[in-house]
Amino acid sequence: MQKIANGWVHRISIPGPSLQNNTADAERVISALQPALGDGTVSIDLDLLRILPGLIRNVGGDLNLTLSRQSDHWTVIGIDPVENAAPVGAAIDLGTSRVVLRLLNLVTGDILAESAFDNPQGSIGPDILARIHHSAEPGGLGALQSLIVNGLNGELASLCRGCGFEPDAVLLAAVAGNTAMTHLFMGLDPQWIIREPYIPVVNRPDLVKAADLGLQLNPCTRAFIFPNIGSYFGGDLIAGILYAGLHQQEETAIMVDVGTNAEVVLGNRNWLIACAGAAGPALEGGVTKMGMMAGPGVIDQVQQAPGTRKLHISTIDDLPPVGICGSGVIDLAAALFMSGMLDIRGKLVPDKCKDRLRYQAGLAHFVLVDRKDSGTGRDLTISQADIDSLIRSKAAMYTILETISQSVGTALADLESFYVAGTFGSFINPRAAISIGMLPDLPLAAYHSLGNSSLGGATRYLCQADCLAEIVRIRDSITYLELNVNQDFMNRFSAAKFLPHTNTNLFPSVAWEE
Amino acid sequence: MQKIANGWVHRISIPGPSLQNNTADAERVISALQPALGDGTVSIDLDLLRILPGLIRNVGGDLNLTLSRQSDHWTVIGIDPVENAAPVGAAIDLGTSRVVLRLLNLVTGDILAESAFDNPQGSIGPDILARIHHSAEPGGLGALQSLIVNGLNGELASLCRGCGFEPDAVLLAAVAGNTAMTHLFMGLDPQWIIREPYIPVVNRPDLVKAADLGLQLNPCTRAFIFPNIGSYFGGDLIAGILYAGLHQQEETAIMVDVGTNAEVVLGNRNWLIACAGAAGPALEGGVTKMGMMAGPGVIDQVQQAPGTRKLHISTIDDLPPVGICGSGVIDLAAALFMSGMLDIRGKLVPDKCKDRLRYQAGLAHFVLVDRKDSGTGRDLTISQADIDSLIRSKAAMYTILETISQSVGTALADLESFYVAGTFGSFINPRAAISIGMLPDLPLAAYHSLGNSSLGGATRYLCQADCLAEIVRIRDSITYLELNVNQDFMNRFSAAKFLPHTNTNLFPSVAWEE
Repeated sequence: MQKIANGWVHRISIPGPSLQNNTADAERVISALQPALGDGTVSIDLDLLRILPGLIRNVGGDLNLTLSRQSDHWTVIGIDPVENAAPVGAAIDLGTSRVVLRLLNLVTGDILAESAFDNPQGSIGPDILARIHHSAEPGGLGALQSLIVNGLNGELASLCRGCGFEPDAVLLAAVAGNTAMTHLFMGLDPQWIIREPYIPVVNRPDLVKAADLGLQLNPCTRAFIFPNIGSYFGGDLIAGILYAGLHQQEETAIMVDVGTNAEVVLGNRNWLIACAGAAGPALEGGVTKMGMMAGPGVIDQVQQAPGTRKLHISTIDDLPPVGICGSGVIDLAAALFMSGMLDIRGKLVPDKCKDRLRYQAGLAHFVLVDRKDSGTGRDLTISQADIDSLIRSKAAMYTILETISQSVGTALADLESFYVAGTFGSFINPRAAISIGMLPDLPLAAYHSLGNSSLGGATRYLCQADCLAEIVRIRDSITYLELNVNQDFMNRFSAAKFLPHTNTNLFPSVAWEE
Repeated sequence: MQKIANGWVHRISIPGPSLQNNTADAERVISALQPALGDGTVSIDLDLLRILPGLIRNVGGDLNLTLSRQSDHWTVIGIDPVENAAPVGAAIDLGTSRVVLRLLNLVTGDILAESAFDNPQGSIGPDILARIHHSAEPGGLGALQSLIVNGLNGELASLCRGCGFEPDAVLLAAVAGNTAMTHLFMGLDPQWIIREPYIPVVNRPDLVKAADLGLQLNPCTRAFIFPNIGSYFGGDLIAGILYAGLHQQEETAIMVDVGTNAEVVLGNRNWLIACAGAAGPALEGGVTKMGMMAGPGVIDQVQQAPGTRKLHISTIDDLPPVGICGSGVIDLAAALFMSGMLDIRGKLVPDKCKDRLRYQAGLAHFVLVDRKDSGTGRDLTISQADIDSLIRSKAAMYTILETISQSVGTALADLESFYVAGTFGSFINPRAAISIGMLPDLPLAAYHSLGNSSLGGATRYLCQADCLAEIVRIRDSITYLELNVNQDFMNRFSAAKFLPHTNTNLFPSVAWEE
């Protein structure tokens, strides 16, 4: 018996029946598999039992057996002649705004296709809170569940057909989402997530039949739903830790995911501690509210010509600028601060900004792009209020990082690896974020962008059956730190509201023009 | 936490959520259950997760949690306030001819109702062979499965409503049937059961969702299907051994089940050996072919007035006689032999039978009931051919008993307990069966009628969650003895074709009139 790649698919040859060995078909399959599964128990899905006799008698050679796993119990969910196309896995990042899918070959782990679509629940409400409130209305939960399930069914079907196979080739799915999205996807009542004491229905949804969720794949398909450790720390984060490998490293490292929420995990192979930004002053939306989502014409980078106050902007697809996204705002704030146009309190300095400053209803606005150069026909400006909001957000972020690291007696400066996850992490310029004191002043080499770590973790599950144990260990070993907004926290927050920080010793590399 | 009765239902109180303990609802339920389940893992059915938050918040007091079990994994399949009616279990004996149902209270084990109906697959074929052949035709298997499943659904529904509850109160079912009936019930292809080398699709069907079988009970209901050890030794027998307790006794005992087949198990707490009569000269139908099934007016007992050749018959419900069933035939043969009307070769003796003997086409017939006394208006007779058939059947039975006991070096005479299972066992008169040499010459106190041991075993499963381990042990420890019809077997068979036996030393208690 040859074990292939990832442990989900095993290639076996099944001994024929004989008068000397009248063991049943199913038990001969199980016996052939057993050596590879150690102490694990095995059963065969009823739908497969119904076609098993024909399969093992009509097929001469070896079979690929695809398994699913619940603790130490394995279920055979696919039996195919090895010459057939390999079984397929679907990794799903169930984002509040955006859902990302990836299909992969369960034998080789090769990625077959990827796509993304806006979470159709957005038609009911853009954020988690609106959707949870809607779920409490009659039929609301069902409607929300249908939206996401139908969305997934449509996208999976077109992705599969684009690859030349039907959706029933997908035998395993791995789904990572925040706690609320996971609940809405599973049809679980999410309303207790947002009410004190903030209790999910389930922490470890584990393995369910995809058909029971409404997914139109194979009748045998199983979906693994990543576990959460509470309402504010979901399966997407557990998947992210798995992907980053935080739980396997000797050195203590930190991972930050800024999506709809800001979540932070600190730890190493021996311990993990986590907290979520929603528990403190919300960073949620704070960075992007003044701007827009990344898209064509959106300013994603702002650079200062050295020694001048001239700003160079880059837009996505090099189109005329229409707005600015999170990474652009951070770049902009850093450039303004470096060149003295923003003072250490985060206030625009009229003497330095000169004619780029305008006032509307008494509020200062910095003109980044003149109407004649913009793609909208209007000035693109950032107001003092927007900057104040950014300052609060960056202060909250730094305070959270400081609080979690101090809680375990680790100095931020001692971290050798700093992982930034999520879309935000993919585009942020760490140098700019350090300059405004949002991220700690580590060597740039310490910063690693993970990209979509939630999807990465889901992919890892599909590439390695063994990693279930890692996921369980991650979930069970995380200490969740409730961020109490006490005097200590507020003192740190106040100190962090300066650029880069009240204590400039924390940011030795940041040299700005007064 | 209070463990109730049988281990399937646990009464727990679930601690409320708090800011100090933000464990999810599901995991608080699981934590409360865990102490009772030792190392076992626990999950909650998705359908229950969907109503869990409301249940544990709206119900003030304790809850009854109903579980199902697969190896050491438990699944919560019912959550009810303790003041509600108790969850219900359904024990099902899936007989080839007759299906018997029993409902019981899963908390107390009390029997709530029982009923039986003819297996509706009888409309396709009276015996296993005809049905298996039909299953190979297009749509045949589906039709056979629908017949039994629809029959069960109808009977379960009326049985439940008669008890004052809906079928969704039934959360656990235990199903015991022979290997072919189990396959047809589960929709598994049975055709390899009757073709060399006689291989079932599955030996251990274990636990399945009742809904996946088409049973209309609760969406969470699980059905445990008793395992088989091969095509000719099914779950009904495993259930029977469980019920008789053969596997727990210090003394070696034997159990015989004569239904459609003759199956024999010999053993004790250390070992079990089994064989099935279909592998030797078939006893199948042999006893009842000449007569009829038990029913009103059927002769079930025949007694000889001591010292005379006068026979006293008893009929069911004391109605005028219309036929004779298996137990009546054995009684009759014993009475004829005791009074010298049948010789040791099993031939009717004209000198002794006198005017009760008639000849049709040269074949002797013994008139048991004159047409004037019968309920049919015709003579009720038994022919020499019928008697020859009985002699072959009884010889086959005794040979099987002798072969299995000699295979382990045990003498039949040394057995302290002899269990007779099935309908046959309920009505047979051991004294008569000994007289004709069908059963060994043990003290009558050694004989125990088990009644419907298959239903009894299914009931035991529902009364004690622990007995899953016993069932697994029984199945795994049975050595199945293939009855080779070799010279040795034929020699024994020939010796057993005499009344009571060629070797009269084996039957010291039998004193007949020459």
